[in-house]
Amino acid sequence: MECRKIEVIVSEMTNLQNLGERKAIEHLTKNLDKRGLLLGFEDDCAALEFGNKLILITTDMITEHTHIPPGSTPYQIGWYIVAVNLSDLAAKGAVPLGMLVALGMPNQYTTKFLRELARGLNACTKKYGTKILGGDTKSNSTLTLSGTAIGIVSKKEFMPRKGCRPGDIVAVTGELGRAAAGFYAIKNARNIKDAYNWLLKPNPRIKEGKLLAQSKIVTSCMDLSDSLGASLSQLSNLNKVGFRIDFDKLPISRDAFRISKNTGTNLEEMVLYFGGDYELLVTLPAAEYMRLSKIFKNSTRIPSNMEIIRKTGLTPIGVVTKARKNIVRINSTDIKLYDRSFEHFK
Amino acid sequence: MECRKIEVIVSEMTNLQNLGERKAIEHLTKNLDKRGLLLGFEDDCAALEFGNKLILITTDMITEHTHIPPGSTPYQIGWYIVAVNLSDLAAKGAVPLGMLVALGMPNQYTTKFLRELARGLNACTKKYGTKILGGDTKSNSTLTLSGTAIGIVSKKEFMPRKGCRPGDIVAVTGELGRAAAGFYAIKNARNIKDAYNWLLKPNPRIKEGKLLAQSKIVTSCMDLSDSLGASLSQLSNLNKVGFRIDFDKLPISRDAFRISKNTGTNLEEMVLYFGGDYELLVTLPAAEYMRLSKIFKNSTRIPSNMEIIRKTGLTPIGVVTKARKNIVRINSTDIKLYDRSFEHFK
Repeated sequence: MECRKIEVIVSEMTNLQNLGERKAIEHLTKNLDKRGLLLGFEDDCAALEFGNKLILITTDMITEHTHIPPGSTPYQIGWYIVAVNLSDLAAKGAVPLGMLVALGMPNQYTTKFLRELARGLNACTKKYGTKILGGDTKSNSTLTLSGTAIGIVSKKEFMPRKGCRPGDIVAVTGELGRAAAGFYAIKNARNIKDAYNWLLKPNPRIKEGKLLAQSKIVTSCMDLSDSLGASLSQLSNLNKVGFRIDFDKLPISRDAFRISKNTGTNLEEMVLYFGGDYELLVTLPAAEYMRLSKIFKNSTRIPSNMEIIRKTGLTPIGVVTKARKNIVRINSTDIKLYDRSFEHFK
Repeated sequence: MECRKIEVIVSEMTNLQNLGERKAIEHLTKNLDKRGLLLGFEDDCAALEFGNKLILITTDMITEHTHIPPGSTPYQIGWYIVAVNLSDLAAKGAVPLGMLVALGMPNQYTTKFLRELARGLNACTKKYGTKILGGDTKSNSTLTLSGTAIGIVSKKEFMPRKGCRPGDIVAVTGELGRAAAGFYAIKNARNIKDAYNWLLKPNPRIKEGKLLAQSKIVTSCMDLSDSLGASLSQLSNLNKVGFRIDFDKLPISRDAFRISKNTGTNLEEMVLYFGGDYELLVTLPAAEYMRLSKIFKNSTRIPSNMEIIRKTGLTPIGVVTKARKNIVRINSTDIKLYDRSFEHFK
């Protein structure tokens, strides 16, 4: 869970510890055939065209080394592998059609683990109106789960990562810093019971993504699986724009404030550079913001086949700028917003 | 790679080493919500309905402990993760639309590994007229790849596992025993150069699956990722029928004969109980067999967007019986055909 950024000159023999996860993905995809792909490899999901609809498909792998701290329950692990995959569909405005889960599991795990894992898989899919369609189970020395979510969205409503323009408002759903609060609470043995849920029971913003998509106002959207700093950096590179964020406007979770105080962890670090909150990061023309805000406030009226989800806010946190620099304003001072996050292989 | 069958009384604390992979999958799926699933969890793929079409989706995980022997090249690993997933689509008569690959990789792996892996992924997807749509890369202590294939088939052509009837002919595509030949050649340090390809470069029978599906004669179909013995046992349980197979009719690979002789490995064990050949196992009414055989012989005339694939045979190997016993006739003697295969967690 190190966040230091190390510049690496990539050679043929550069290993992944020096390269980091995101650069490894770049290196792999650079060598893959991209002809005919609707979205390249740069979006939260891959897309296939079906008339006026897009079938979206996405995969995310989690392991006990990177995402599942000791003490996590099988129920929480089941929930988490569903949630992180559905979150990618949510960011595109898609409705889930189903999920597959491939499970690599050490030999000493028991049938009780399988039953409790299934409970978690059932609970999260049910809450978001979908189900597990199938999967695979294999022996592995490390607990490893790989999920695949499949969803559908009309072409007109699809929200890409590419599309934001200078002057657009930047907004986020829900609250930031809860996953970081979970991590630092576990690390410092505080609020342990809640902490695992903060880290492993995110709520994928399927309903909110659908509302955003139906508004047809959104110019770009992605989910905050990575940190806010790293996510804005990705949008910045893709759209050739910059971002100016106001730290005072960030909807910081009360749990993050409390755990920061109780454990002496830097709050800015938790909120800007940790990630794992699975909220939606969205841009839209400034003139349309009030309309979208109103739609969000009335959102409980929208009929849905999902369970009623506690109303989730939408908070404006900054603007898109022409200058390609990412800035966060903290205590009336402009500070550079870095491209760093939880990085695997580091 | 043990094949002994151990009967286990499953309790809450039974671990996976005693349970075995297939029973672990049964235990997990038993606890999952199955309402509304088109195929339950019993088929090679999951299915979603789209008008008169089915979108099929399947996932398979491989690891260095279970599928990737030391000495495998990244190119072969890339090929293999694509091939094993496409094989599940082939068995349903589907055409692939794309693949996702999630990669869990130890830190010491280099960019060269990623580039060569991409070459293997490109080569196998290209050969079968499809491409990698996206994926994920994570740090893992064990090399682990999880693939997801998505495909499409018309409802009328879909070939289920369930449907064979007593009196049906049983047939297989291609040849059997080549993967076993690869495994035992590597184990005994013979024909090493070819051996890795026998084991890791199977040809998913996409074109042959399509021919079988278009004939609309097939009553059931599955791929031979597991052994012939285990696969027939699965069809037997699902369809409440038995099978009578003639060992002399099996299309045994010349490589299997040679490696059996050179290494002293039992040929019957290699051909009946090893698996990994990724051929199609198919049943159809006896009266229709000649027609299907003719279609297969003329198959190179079928237009296809795939590269020309060397003509693959279809061989009748036995019949479906009313009596629920699986029998293999070897040297004029009827012998019980066991439900055993390569089993993970064993």
